[in-house]
Amino acid sequence: MRLAVIPGDGIGPEVVTEALKVLAEVTPAASDLDITNYDLGAARWHSTGELLPESVIGELRQHDAILLGAVGDPSVPSGILERGLLLRLRFELDHHVNLRPARLYPGVQGPLATQSEIDMVVVREGTEGPYAGNGGILRKDTEHEIATEVSLNTAFGIKRVVADAFARAQQRPRKHVTLVHKTNVLEHAGSLWSRVVEEASMRHPDVTVDYLHVDAATIHLVTDPSRFDVVVTDNLFGDIITDIAAAVTGGIGLAASGNLDVTRANPSMFEPVHGSAPDIAGQGAADPTATVLSLSLLLDHLGHTEAARRIEASVAFDLATRDHSSPGATQAIGDRLAALVSSNTRHEV
Amino acid sequence: MRLAVIPGDGIGPEVVTEALKVLAEVTPAASDLDITNYDLGAARWHSTGELLPESVIGELRQHDAILLGAVGDPSVPSGILERGLLLRLRFELDHHVNLRPARLYPGVQGPLATQSEIDMVVVREGTEGPYAGNGGILRKDTEHEIATEVSLNTAFGIKRVVADAFARAQQRPRKHVTLVHKTNVLEHAGSLWSRVVEEASMRHPDVTVDYLHVDAATIHLVTDPSRFDVVVTDNLFGDIITDIAAAVTGGIGLAASGNLDVTRANPSMFEPVHGSAPDIAGQGAADPTATVLSLSLLLDHLGHTEAARRIEASVAFDLATRDHSSPGATQAIGDRLAALVSSNTRHEV
Ligand SMILES: CC(C)[C@H](C(=O)O)[C@@H](O)C(=O)O
Ligand SMILES: CC(C)[C@H](C(=O)O)[C@@H](O)C(=O)O
Repeated sequence: MRLAVIPGDGIGPEVVTEALKVLAEVTPAASDLDITNYDLGAARWHSTGELLPESVIGELRQHDAILLGAVGDPSVPSGILERGLLLRLRFELDHHVNLRPARLYPGVQGPLATQSEIDMVVVREGTEGPYAGNGGILRKDTEHEIATEVSLNTAFGIKRVVADAFARAQQRPRKHVTLVHKTNVLEHAGSLWSRVVEEASMRHPDVTVDYLHVDAATIHLVTDPSRFDVVVTDNLFGDIITDIAAAVTGGIGLAASGNLDVTRANPSMFEPVHGSAPDIAGQGAADPTATVLSLSLLLDHLGHTEAARRIEASVAFDLATRDHSSPGATQAIGDRLAALVSSNTRHEV
Repeated sequence: MRLAVIPGDGIGPEVVTEALKVLAEVTPAASDLDITNYDLGAARWHSTGELLPESVIGELRQHDAILLGAVGDPSVPSGILERGLLLRLRFELDHHVNLRPARLYPGVQGPLATQSEIDMVVVREGTEGPYAGNGGILRKDTEHEIATEVSLNTAFGIKRVVADAFARAQQRPRKHVTLVHKTNVLEHAGSLWSRVVEEASMRHPDVTVDYLHVDAATIHLVTDPSRFDVVVTDNLFGDIITDIAAAVTGGIGLAASGNLDVTRANPSMFEPVHGSAPDIAGQGAADPTATVLSLSLLLDHLGHTEAARRIEASVAFDLATRDHSSPGATQAIGDRLAALVSSNTRHEV
């Protein structure tokens, strides 16, 4: 497996180190792994002004997958690294399915008073919508200033993520898809999304479908999150509801994600949902669990299903048994997870 | 006071009836009140095809304020009433400040495990952003279909709501404003919003300011909602976060809102955040509290501060003492609130 690793900024390198420790345990022989580190992020931008050189994109394309820690630093103006590096990677490598599972693991106490079973996955569109970077400013710094943001939505772009969502639903016990949008206000994009889901629904009579406006969806995520199975939604709504889904399942410290090119023309990229957390960087205080779970998604995507399951079961076991008031330092958690993964006993929860 | 009332659809007429009962109690003489009912909503659309005739808009403008129950019915295609009636009213009457307080009243058990004090108000922009209705569809029903939605943001439109947010913050003990946006992705609109808030902040050194990306804001609303005081945000982000704010303070059954033209050139409109709830319509099962609280906002806006306070205190007293497992029927709650309001004793909580 040729793996590109982008440790990034802040706690990124720390959590990636632990994930690679876990990866070593599920890899039969060290020679099976070919890891290349890519130094991208705040430091590189400061020293060279580079965010993501063309040559690096070319090299990344030669890999089977990418593992990313986190990018972002207060020393860099907001948006520079996000748009120039993170979003650029997603767009250049056609990561149209932004996959974000949210599961409330046994032992994890979420913020809701009623603990119900939460096991959902959000299929967030990743390459268009309001993230297209389309818009502008007219008459800047005058009283007549106007700023626009254009959400671009294509049948091509929506069909492929909706197809992915239905395919995932078919593999799950509840076989349910919820479209989240704001069709009553955003009528054009809403109409296109609705029609695409309707067509897919006709082709998948075994999958049940419902629709929620994004505002109502956020309420349900707080009052009745167990109702969700597979959610399919646009780039911006997906950004928002996956953060709430993460919050109600124990926080973004546990939330994993995959940026998938499901056609496999480009390597997919896996990253924890949390950011670079500069406030706790360098202290060994970050929880690497989200990155380890992202590694599990990576292995699953590459067909190493057994290894992916083993990692997920180890995380589940650790979460069920860890002292959540003092889960340990980054390295201690990584060591624990690596040991669990390597032990011959399978830890199912 | 010349009051226009739009009972609307579903539970709308039921909750409005109770609010008017409460209004009668705070009105010194019946002759002080001049109420006109406007029959707008699903029924009118079905029988005449009309949503909001020009003549009705003209009449509405002659009033001091508008009280709206709810619009929407499953028999009407989604979006028709929302865009043709509700949003049209907000846009025609220049309701630029969409005011949505969220307070966790004593006695109300929200969905969060940790009950902290929540007392925030969202100043949601109401007349532009992604709600501008600007966009279109190209090559409909072909594989090359494209749909756009254009978010329009003006210095004029943003400055006035930001000014309102700062003015409100100055009246509150914590004097804090949080801008919620997604400046790292929506760079043009984000830049304009940020600059306007920065300028306002310079003019209001007594008000502290911070910024949250919308996704992070939703996490904080679930994990630490007491951090919020005044939130200022765009139309779509405001739609989403006010529903979460309502959810964590006991649900949209209690959430009030005002659609304000702060210049007072047009009448402002007050409505519960909840919808027409067709599933429980006609059963006397709806809670009129959100509408009564909206009436309190209405009276406050018109300068009847004392009456507004009396209503809010009565609601607070009722919520602190009611049996939340069986709060009573619509009419019983209305009667209770009317009695509390009319009693000479002031009920402060
Ligand atoms: C950092 C930011 C650009 C990014 C996004 O908005 O997608 C993040 O919030 C995420 O969800 O991965
Ligand atoms: C019904 C809908 C158009 C409306 C909105 O999006 O503003 C509603 O959700 C609200 O918040 O008042």
